[in-house]
Amino acid sequence: MNKLLVFQSDFGLSDGAVAAMYGVALSVDETLKIYDLTHEIPPFDTFEASYRLLQAVPFWPASTVFVTVVDPGVGSSRRSIVVKTKGGHYIVTPDNGSISHIARSFGIESVRRIAEDVGRRKNSEYSHTFHGRDIYGYTGALLASGKLDYDAIGPYVDPTSLVLLEGLYPQISADSVTGTIETLDVRFGSLWTNISGGTLEEIGIRTGDLADVTVMKDKSKLYHSFVMYSHTFADVEIGEPLLYINSMNHIGVAINQGNFARAYNIGTREPWHIQIRKIKQ
Amino acid sequence: MNKLLVFQSDFGLSDGAVAAMYGVALSVDETLKIYDLTHEIPPFDTFEASYRLLQAVPFWPASTVFVTVVDPGVGSSRRSIVVKTKGGHYIVTPDNGSISHIARSFGIESVRRIAEDVGRRKNSEYSHTFHGRDIYGYTGALLASGKLDYDAIGPYVDPTSLVLLEGLYPQISADSVTGTIETLDVRFGSLWTNISGGTLEEIGIRTGDLADVTVMKDKSKLYHSFVMYSHTFADVEIGEPLLYINSMNHIGVAINQGNFARAYNIGTREPWHIQIRKIKQ
Amino acid sequence: MNKLLVFQSDFGLSDGAVAAMYGVALSVDETLKIYDLTHEIPPFDTFEASYRLLQAVPFWPASTVFVTVVDPGVGSSRRSIVVKTKGGHYIVTPDNGSISHIARSFGIESVRRIAEDVGRRKNSEYSHTFHGRDIYGYTGALLASGKLDYDAIGPYVDPTSLVLLEGLYPQISADSVTGTIETLDVRFGSLWTNISGGTLEEIGIRTGDLADVTVMKDKSKLYHSFVMYSHTFADVEIGEPLLYINSMNHIGVAINQGNFARAYNIGTREPWHIQIRKIKQ
Repeated sequence: MNKLLVFQSDFGLSDGAVAAMYGVALSVDETLKIYDLTHEIPPFDTFEASYRLLQAVPFWPASTVFVTVVDPGVGSSRRSIVVKTKGGHYIVTPDNGSISHIARSFGIESVRRIAEDVGRRKNSEYSHTFHGRDIYGYTGALLASGKLDYDAIGPYVDPTSLVLLEGLYPQISADSVTGTIETLDVRFGSLWTNISGGTLEEIGIRTGDLADVTVMKDKSKLYHSFVMYSHTFADVEIGEPLLYINSMNHIGVAINQGNFARAYNIGTREPWHIQIRKIKQ
Repeated sequence: MNKLLVFQSDFGLSDGAVAAMYGVALSVDETLKIYDLTHEIPPFDTFEASYRLLQAVPFWPASTVFVTVVDPGVGSSRRSIVVKTKGGHYIVTPDNGSISHIARSFGIESVRRIAEDVGRRKNSEYSHTFHGRDIYGYTGALLASGKLDYDAIGPYVDPTSLVLLEGLYPQISADSVTGTIETLDVRFGSLWTNISGGTLEEIGIRTGDLADVTVMKDKSKLYHSFVMYSHTFADVEIGEPLLYINSMNHIGVAINQGNFARAYNIGTREPWHIQIRKIKQ
Repeated sequence: MNKLLVFQSDFGLSDGAVAAMYGVALSVDETLKIYDLTHEIPPFDTFEASYRLLQAVPFWPASTVFVTVVDPGVGSSRRSIVVKTKGGHYIVTPDNGSISHIARSFGIESVRRIAEDVGRRKNSEYSHTFHGRDIYGYTGALLASGKLDYDAIGPYVDPTSLVLLEGLYPQISADSVTGTIETLDVRFGSLWTNISGGTLEEIGIRTGDLADVTVMKDKSKLYHSFVMYSHTFADVEIGEPLLYINSMNHIGVAINQGNFARAYNIGTREPWHIQIRKIKQ
């Protein structure tokens, strides 16, 4: 283990909750190197938790341990698990869909359920509402420090039994693809779709081509135009729209130095969809 | 010393002030391991500074050094001190009440006043407004690095002379307890009271009982209902209220997956109070 | 190299972008010690990026590597550079003015252009929009880890060819100085000017003197009063204004425990100016 431990939550940074998790982890092993993914996940938003893991996890060294605590079911019978990914990362999480995007894009190697007698902090029995500190953070620290082997965390869980979010895959036809808008590049207003990087080439659209782009809310078309498939923002004029491969190797839609989402008042996830179609010659 | 140094302030994270404190500390000792408690304390709010220390400090390894800079009196004659807690933590702070909750719940072992010739950064004489960087952060770094002994910080201060906040203790009678709402679990809207975990049992309320709960603003009752004393949110239906022991081992009041404070428009501290009464059989 | 790596950006902390940069850097060298300056630079605001570097960089140990990614021209032909300052710090940045304040106040020792075959992360060719992760963060990590020598980054760049922001210097006459309001001490509302610490003495104003202060928006006077030149806030009554030397060794204008900018509705940069004049005896 490389002693790297990374936290994500929906706690925000304005109180002491994140620092309490850090303290517990460093009480397990003062030599852990602790970092944050984000703590600004909207409360209870497991989709966002799942998406942000995809954005960051793949860039970390193998064997890094991630602890993600977006946990609307705290205190219920939802399972507490540790997922080993095919990329060799560990993710400590409630079994509530937070692992979905990583499962889709990288695959799951195996899963362990956290046995309460192994993964609960001593003297924390009074508390039933902060598993991030008392179970997930504590277990993550044990694992990252090498004081607890992955195989000793608890019983094996069948990966096919995990809770997974729905609607993560785009629909591809001969000359078009229809996907979802998974998130916005918040500060810059670009749409980030679930359509992966090579898909436009598959349906015959090449860099430099115009493509026929429609954004729908349910059945209503909220945006329809021809948009250039470009390498980067600077390939089009300031104020012009573009399709591009974003930093997660998925298709994005943006306005160069503008805000696409705000310009057309576009939102994310259901009931929003985007269709990209090859223009007939 | 374990070389752990933790900062708290009301500076926010949108400028370079926190990073300047980090730089000063790492210039003292590049091997310090620096973390944040929070920097989102509302400006000048020493109560909040005190409360957030209570939420995080006890979970860190003994000998960790905390630097808290919420300092409305910067440049005045208020004392600059280092507090050693009964838990073995060190807290570098202006003497303005920031230590109150830790003093209440864990106790103070001893206090030293920072001698200016020991604890002021060289070449910082031009600046009289950023003691977080020039005195508190610098002194904290010296202490955490082992380059300055606690006993060499400056003269002994009588712990009973420290500035302490008032109104931190609930009033307990035979069948009821009246306390304050110290803070909200901001993102989730639960009320966090100053009534400690075992108090309900002391007045005859057991887990699973209904209790008579009143929230008052001055003399006006703003909420009155029978509420179940539960282990955790999931013990009641979604949308139902509950009393529970929160992660700080105090009584909380929540709505399962709802926002209690927003639902009843409830605030914190003076003039808000909460009374919990055993229901007569 | 001391293995310290510090990131600044306009990405915010609510998604996974910053954590992706951290992951890339730690994949270069797991022993790097990574910290943040700020990620709350307003989008595309190179002036603010430049100013925040000035606020923090000088307080860090020499040889610390800073990576600043405020990059409206990502994907354009703007140069990617590493600046070595006269203070011995390294700053990895697009050549867009982000280095201006450091150049003004501390000076630039030399500059290297990042050669793409040296400073681009392997397997990142698909992405043209996240140079913070794929080029700047990666190059900064190589440099901070000692795996890449400064001289091997790429060709020498003439420091006089760098893009620099304009209007950074105040105008000084025999009895007055006219400068800009570079930023607000956001949470506390003080005006932070570009007038350096010793300037008032140069024009005959001493600590304890009243000075004639005018704030202008274009040609309109928005504030005019006699203000005490003080050491610190506590030298004047609560609610009174003061001139003081701020923590960056520049002249600030504040109200003790009040908010000067909000009180008089004052903004920053063009078209705002401040004039400080010695009062005739």
